[in-house]
Amino acid sequence: MSQFLNVVSPTEAIAIMSKNLSQVSSEIIDTDCSLGRVLSSDKVAEIQLPEFLRSSMDGYSVKASNTFGATEDLPAYLEVVGEIDMGHQVVPSISAGQAVTAYTGGMLADGADSVVMIEHTSMTGDGLLQVFRPVAKGENTIRPGEDFDFGDFIGKYGDVITTGTLGALLALGIDKVEVYRQLTVGVISSGDELVAPGVPTKLGQTRDINVYTIAAQIEKLGMGHVKFPLVEDNVESLQSAGMEALESCDALLYTSGSSLSSRDLTSQVIQSLGEPGVIAHGISVKPGKPTVLGITSGKPVIGLPGNPVSALTVFDFVVDPILRHISGRKTLPYQTVTAILQTDLPSERGRTDFVRVALKEIESSLTAVPIWGKSNSISVFSETVGYVQVSSEQSGLYKGTKVKVRLDV
Amino acid sequence: MSQFLNVVSPTEAIAIMSKNLSQVSSEIIDTDCSLGRVLSSDKVAEIQLPEFLRSSMDGYSVKASNTFGATEDLPAYLEVVGEIDMGHQVVPSISAGQAVTAYTGGMLADGADSVVMIEHTSMTGDGLLQVFRPVAKGENTIRPGEDFDFGDFIGKYGDVITTGTLGALLALGIDKVEVYRQLTVGVISSGDELVAPGVPTKLGQTRDINVYTIAAQIEKLGMGHVKFPLVEDNVESLQSAGMEALESCDALLYTSGSSLSSRDLTSQVIQSLGEPGVIAHGISVKPGKPTVLGITSGKPVIGLPGNPVSALTVFDFVVDPILRHISGRKTLPYQTVTAILQTDLPSERGRTDFVRVALKEIESSLTAVPIWGKSNSISVFSETVGYVQVSSEQSGLYKGTKVKVRLDV
Repeated sequence: MSQFLNVVSPTEAIAIMSKNLSQVSSEIIDTDCSLGRVLSSDKVAEIQLPEFLRSSMDGYSVKASNTFGATEDLPAYLEVVGEIDMGHQVVPSISAGQAVTAYTGGMLADGADSVVMIEHTSMTGDGLLQVFRPVAKGENTIRPGEDFDFGDFIGKYGDVITTGTLGALLALGIDKVEVYRQLTVGVISSGDELVAPGVPTKLGQTRDINVYTIAAQIEKLGMGHVKFPLVEDNVESLQSAGMEALESCDALLYTSGSSLSSRDLTSQVIQSLGEPGVIAHGISVKPGKPTVLGITSGKPVIGLPGNPVSALTVFDFVVDPILRHISGRKTLPYQTVTAILQTDLPSERGRTDFVRVALKEIESSLTAVPIWGKSNSISVFSETVGYVQVSSEQSGLYKGTKVKVRLDV
Repeated sequence: MSQFLNVVSPTEAIAIMSKNLSQVSSEIIDTDCSLGRVLSSDKVAEIQLPEFLRSSMDGYSVKASNTFGATEDLPAYLEVVGEIDMGHQVVPSISAGQAVTAYTGGMLADGADSVVMIEHTSMTGDGLLQVFRPVAKGENTIRPGEDFDFGDFIGKYGDVITTGTLGALLALGIDKVEVYRQLTVGVISSGDELVAPGVPTKLGQTRDINVYTIAAQIEKLGMGHVKFPLVEDNVESLQSAGMEALESCDALLYTSGSSLSSRDLTSQVIQSLGEPGVIAHGISVKPGKPTVLGITSGKPVIGLPGNPVSALTVFDFVVDPILRHISGRKTLPYQTVTAILQTDLPSERGRTDFVRVALKEIESSLTAVPIWGKSNSISVFSETVGYVQVSSEQSGLYKGTKVKVRLDV
């Protein structure tokens, strides 16, 4: 089989795969445990928050009109006719000239429309409340629905549940929430030269790390993973491991050896697993060209390149968006910082380059320092914090260019 | 007890607490499961990576000198005397004029010093290898130790283990790693007006969300948490819950009601739990002033303000750095983006303000949009993505100022 029959750009790769893959199903979970999960439908407030006119200060609930004109020299005098214990439902009423003690977060008296802060009051010897500043109607209060009103959006489908969303859901009494099922991604590693990390190597052998680094990236996405034991570099072993994986997993990644024959093997195996099979054969990126994209029974099956940095790069720019798509989450912009490129980055038109960079403060400018001369080995990844992208329309980037660095966060 | 006897700046708060708190102990875990954990000692490479002269291409291992001067018109002719199967230890030797098939990631023949890419060769009818381009000594190879040499740093103590670190450790055969023990943070919530989120509210009651939002922030830091059931607003209940929590937790946070009396209670309770007790009573920040900082038996015990946004803000700017300190991780710079401030932000000298902002692209400028008029309610948090800080030396920030937005990531 010839290599790279059908080389696509990374954007095309994501689009073709996404078009042919749908979201996983949804499930109902405790809101309390939903941090990082993805809403599968819009959530709107069905009650108001606060549910009652709430004091935002410690002080006294009053009728604002009773405080108009009050000053340090000429305070307003009010009679304190009660207090509202936090969380109790006995609500005193006030008439003109009266006040009731109010607590931050608590209710106002019936008939009160504002709160005088305790700092702006004092008690006279004979038990009258002196108010030294006027308050406007509504001052130091939170009106019902001010935080959330009926029908306000808490979150939309595809939103990741943040701390703020989780808090809003719970504050609105929503203690169960429907979210997309959490993805399980299978990772199968093969390569006759590979041994598991705990095993001493013999001459010519290399420790298999891709299965672990790829699993780590999946974990960072908040998805589950199953790491299958290292399999032999032959169609039968790769195929039977793949069939097993597809029974329990929502997506399957092969990380195989880096030689041409391994790559051939991966595409044969993906083709054999089921319809439609291989979708694209190679991506016009550097590093990571020898990537095989396939779909089997509605699940993505992707053969990653063998080189550790190539595998991680393809994961970050191609697999990550595909997995986000099927996990139901809207693709959010990645975190970037702007930095000055320290060296020229030669590239080729028609190919997208992803170059790992460190960030250094040089002469008080944030500088993107490409790491070279290490043949895309794993230290490149551990010494850098993100990627600079050279788009396929560019034949390179000059030293001194302002570049966006996509951060590993 | 008077409030705010001892108000400190956020920087002082972090410094005083950190000075008096030490790191948790360390433990040895599987490297495979160490993503996000913190190295408790420097890790250096004890072997070389690669361990042998490795081919970085598919092709033929040769003596570079045998290819000098080779061109399309005048190729060099070499005799292929064998191949090196991936991962097998039988290594053929070559003499002058000979070549051995090489695979990406595999070994070179004994006596070879470089690799000719397969693309730059062809076979003649009588089985001789034609080489169309010269290679330099070392070309298309990775020398032993090029990725990691003896003594190279993989990571330093206090570093969080990233995907790159994890990959490097495993590639170097380090399948167990010593890391700081994972922190468990206890969260105790009290407030007579509060009910658990799943319970219908009565008039004047509010759902307790701080315990859940704070737990979510702890989870995001990669730490464990124990949420204790809502306790009554009295010294005995808060004290006995605190004593129970301190038996199993490395740090304790109280999130109490928002009234003055609740705050008093929290500081009494922290003082009663053990020496040295309350360290600072109030922080010069907005929001979040009514925070109580204490230490008991070498563990931080912190009383957070009752307002949800105040509690989260104090967590992010004060508690987070203290927890990072005891968890052993070096305090890394937080993720920020630069944006244009959309409105004036009035503040007061001597006080640090943290204002929640949304980010919008307005007239192709990234704009920080402060969310106002919602009395620091939870929707402020769910509608925004980060903070703008107004330092204590400033009396405010003008509209149009370039500001750093600290992102919630």
